[in-house]
Amino acid sequence: MSNKLVIYDSTLRDGAQALGISFTVEDKLKIVKKLDKLGIDYIEAGNPGSNPKDLEFFDRVLKLELNTARIIAFGATRRANIKVHEDANVQSLLKAGTEAIAVFGKSWDFQVTDILKTTLEENLNMIYDTIKFLKDKGKIVVYDAEHFFDGYRANPEYAMETLKVANKAGVDTICLCDTKGAGLPSYIAKITGLVKEQVNCAIGIHCHNDNGMAVAGSIAAVEAGAVQIQGTINGFGERCGNANLCTIIPNLQLMMNYSCIPESNMERLTSTARYVSEVANIVHDERAPFVGNCAFAHKAGMHADAVNKNTSAYEMINPEVVGNQRNILMSEVAGRSAVMSMINMVDSTITKDSPETKKIIERLKELEYEGYQYEGAESSFELVIRKMLGKYKSFFELKEFKVIVNEPTVSVNSSAMIKILVDGQTEITAAEGDGPVNALDKALRKALERFYPQIAEMKLTDYKVRVLDSNFATASKVRVLIETTDGQDVWTTVGVSTDIIEASWRALVDSVEHKLMKGN
Amino acid sequence: MSNKLVIYDSTLRDGAQALGISFTVEDKLKIVKKLDKLGIDYIEAGNPGSNPKDLEFFDRVLKLELNTARIIAFGATRRANIKVHEDANVQSLLKAGTEAIAVFGKSWDFQVTDILKTTLEENLNMIYDTIKFLKDKGKIVVYDAEHFFDGYRANPEYAMETLKVANKAGVDTICLCDTKGAGLPSYIAKITGLVKEQVNCAIGIHCHNDNGMAVAGSIAAVEAGAVQIQGTINGFGERCGNANLCTIIPNLQLMMNYSCIPESNMERLTSTARYVSEVANIVHDERAPFVGNCAFAHKAGMHADAVNKNTSAYEMINPEVVGNQRNILMSEVAGRSAVMSMINMVDSTITKDSPETKKIIERLKELEYEGYQYEGAESSFELVIRKMLGKYKSFFELKEFKVIVNEPTVSVNSSAMIKILVDGQTEITAAEGDGPVNALDKALRKALERFYPQIAEMKLTDYKVRVLDSNFATASKVRVLIETTDGQDVWTTVGVSTDIIEASWRALVDSVEHKLMKGN
Repeated sequence: MSNKLVIYDSTLRDGAQALGISFTVEDKLKIVKKLDKLGIDYIEAGNPGSNPKDLEFFDRVLKLELNTARIIAFGATRRANIKVHEDANVQSLLKAGTEAIAVFGKSWDFQVTDILKTTLEENLNMIYDTIKFLKDKGKIVVYDAEHFFDGYRANPEYAMETLKVANKAGVDTICLCDTKGAGLPSYIAKITGLVKEQVNCAIGIHCHNDNGMAVAGSIAAVEAGAVQIQGTINGFGERCGNANLCTIIPNLQLMMNYSCIPESNMERLTSTARYVSEVANIVHDERAPFVGNCAFAHKAGMHADAVNKNTSAYEMINPEVVGNQRNILMSEVAGRSAVMSMINMVDSTITKDSPETKKIIERLKELEYEGYQYEGAESSFELVIRKMLGKYKSFFELKEFKVIVNEPTVSVNSSAMIKILVDGQTEITAAEGDGPVNALDKALRKALERFYPQIAEMKLTDYKVRVLDSNFATASKVRVLIETTDGQDVWTTVGVSTDIIEASWRALVDSVEHKLMKGN
Repeated sequence: MSNKLVIYDSTLRDGAQALGISFTVEDKLKIVKKLDKLGIDYIEAGNPGSNPKDLEFFDRVLKLELNTARIIAFGATRRANIKVHEDANVQSLLKAGTEAIAVFGKSWDFQVTDILKTTLEENLNMIYDTIKFLKDKGKIVVYDAEHFFDGYRANPEYAMETLKVANKAGVDTICLCDTKGAGLPSYIAKITGLVKEQVNCAIGIHCHNDNGMAVAGSIAAVEAGAVQIQGTINGFGERCGNANLCTIIPNLQLMMNYSCIPESNMERLTSTARYVSEVANIVHDERAPFVGNCAFAHKAGMHADAVNKNTSAYEMINPEVVGNQRNILMSEVAGRSAVMSMINMVDSTITKDSPETKKIIERLKELEYEGYQYEGAESSFELVIRKMLGKYKSFFELKEFKVIVNEPTVSVNSSAMIKILVDGQTEITAAEGDGPVNALDKALRKALERFYPQIAEMKLTDYKVRVLDSNFATASKVRVLIETTDGQDVWTTVGVSTDIIEASWRALVDSVEHKLMKGN
């Protein structure tokens, strides 16, 4: 295990700086447990000096029984011209009660003189005193050298001096921060190598993604000798985010033979990433490497064919290793082999030479001609296959619906009436909504809940409309994609019509049928 | 200009492989014009051999008057064991009629034997013959060495041999492709350097983002001597996307002193990125470096304070350089100068210091907060300005409309009733349509034609729907864009609401008012 790297997560501290993210204490506790299960080494969980609510959190988090994760309290070096034990922030760091503490300080001469408004000499004392004080208290100490790469560019001697002082004070790890996110990976590698020659403690790396290269910068630092990587789940963080640990961990561990987390935990990566998105209430980035829905999705006929012939041709890794799955997309150019793997999910006995296969492909061509596209709408495609193979069961029959939009009105614009039949029983009901589709969605689910209470678990999470042939303007065909979750799974369904209400209705019905077919 | 790099955009070809992206011919022509205005050198626009619809596109695109952009037709090397001039795909490439052609071929021995199922020797002939044939026809030829980095890892001698053969055939540029997206930037740099020693043509780089390092890999290749960068706007592409040109261009040009596009065009970067997202009907990534809403946004606290003290502390560049802004809420995508020129079209006496300008910008901020975006909807924007300046005349007053969608029915699904008031005269009428918006559109124009016969000249040519906040699913806000022509002009209008009928109505009204304001 000589190539074990230390993974340092800052989702709860630096990640919480992102626009739109605001964690409650409960959120933070949930995420700590999830990160611990993934096998993260350090969890930087807040700044007890800047946020009094964080002290309550530290009190509670230290009572959790964690496997391997150590909680980190984060704060600044002491203020200028006071004694370290008199500094309220430093005292808060101790009060947090964690075994490990991260302190950040200035490396860039301009920041010392213009932001802190103190002398270069006093800044060195602030770094030394704070680290020495915390080490004397028996803490594991990480020193975050803020703006290190900018500082080094501006004044290399002084920037290096700040690190030497930290090293002399007995710090465990010096973390080089690319705070502005402008560091070129080759530059980060070069400077990290120079630092390694000057200090004898461990070196860490903390990148921001303003130049789109936070992951590459972190990995370049590891190649140059850094052993601790700071980042966040999904790259959450201010501006363009922090280095994305969900990208860094599999790169280092699966492609470069480093060890970051226990091997058996790697398959938790995708669910951890989705869980954190869910708790943060941020739409998960489906194009994200390794943990996005699209990461192993194949569309082009040629490539999809090649993937089936040999997955190593177009995939870095087996998606299951990171708990993700291959997602062969249907499309106008999709080859027969892509369709086959879908058919075999429904019935494994059918081969490409079976008469059923030919019929399904004919049906698929008809539907695509009508404007259907099943890429990313596999649940609707599965229903098509089930209908063709006689493996489909109808859960309800629509008798009628009517949607009315009225303008101008004071309160409600749209309402929907629906009448359905389930096992000989009729249900008629109505609902109002924000727009006609929302009203229809609500009415359908209200009508079904009496017969299928599990419908209540369903939540629509995305609704996309694509106009298929712009030449016909408002009479164009539209394709509606609906994404639904029940907390366990996420599925997407599709509907096509010249009428947006009709197209939405078809996608809604497929979504409901998919849920009911699951039987839970 | 010795450090001029060639920017090669593949949004319309490789970008169109992305999940959820499907460009019409009109979409592609619009994007070509936008990319040309940005100053892109090459635009890879499709594969005429794999898609007959592309031939219509090539016919039309070559009639456009472009500034500097050259259109590229893309296709494979000839098939095995046939003469190159007998190869239908190669013939389609010629038929496309472009000045420049990109051909892709295999570099990875395993792909030659297992996917193409031919000999290593014949593959070399396929590469040589195809390039030689196209060069003899006077074309600029780019050779895309597919899977080059994987191929080089597996069999370096053979992979290099495929390039030497291309070089010998007289190719202009050899582009090294990291097709699987697994290339470590340091590895890409090393191998690119080795290639540079072996061939005497220009070297390009084409990265995919499966490891989250496509931008860094592209830049590492440039550091090692590559001079052509292939990528897509917003990084659109299959799986995790292609290298993002909107990140690469400012990194190279603003941070590393290379020249990619004319300096004066750099401020178009953000609006180009947003425009392509809009046409592709993909939610723009607000965390994207340089061109996202969050890229220069600062949350309250320590950093925001520091930013106010000195922007260089937490920002790589001045956001205006790339046409972006510091604020969380953008007052307008195109920049204040674009707003000013629109104001001056309505009233040439107003300056940027006039109180009216401040009021208009405040109003724009409000509207943008509601979800309006005027990029590409200048006619609605003009109406906003007219209303603020008291230069707006109402042509009709809506008294009521009602839209009814009924299902299931035999023939007509949607109907709309409308009542309007013009100069004290009431008109009430109704129409049926394909879908509720079409019915409403027809009813409105039917009602107005009695008063304004020129309405009959109007024809809606495009209708786009964008869901603004996916988290609320069918109750999300939608933005509707409508494009209209009267045979002389083409104009676009926008409407926003949680109700798609309401949003469409607003865009329809703006469209009609624009036509009536023209007075002809």
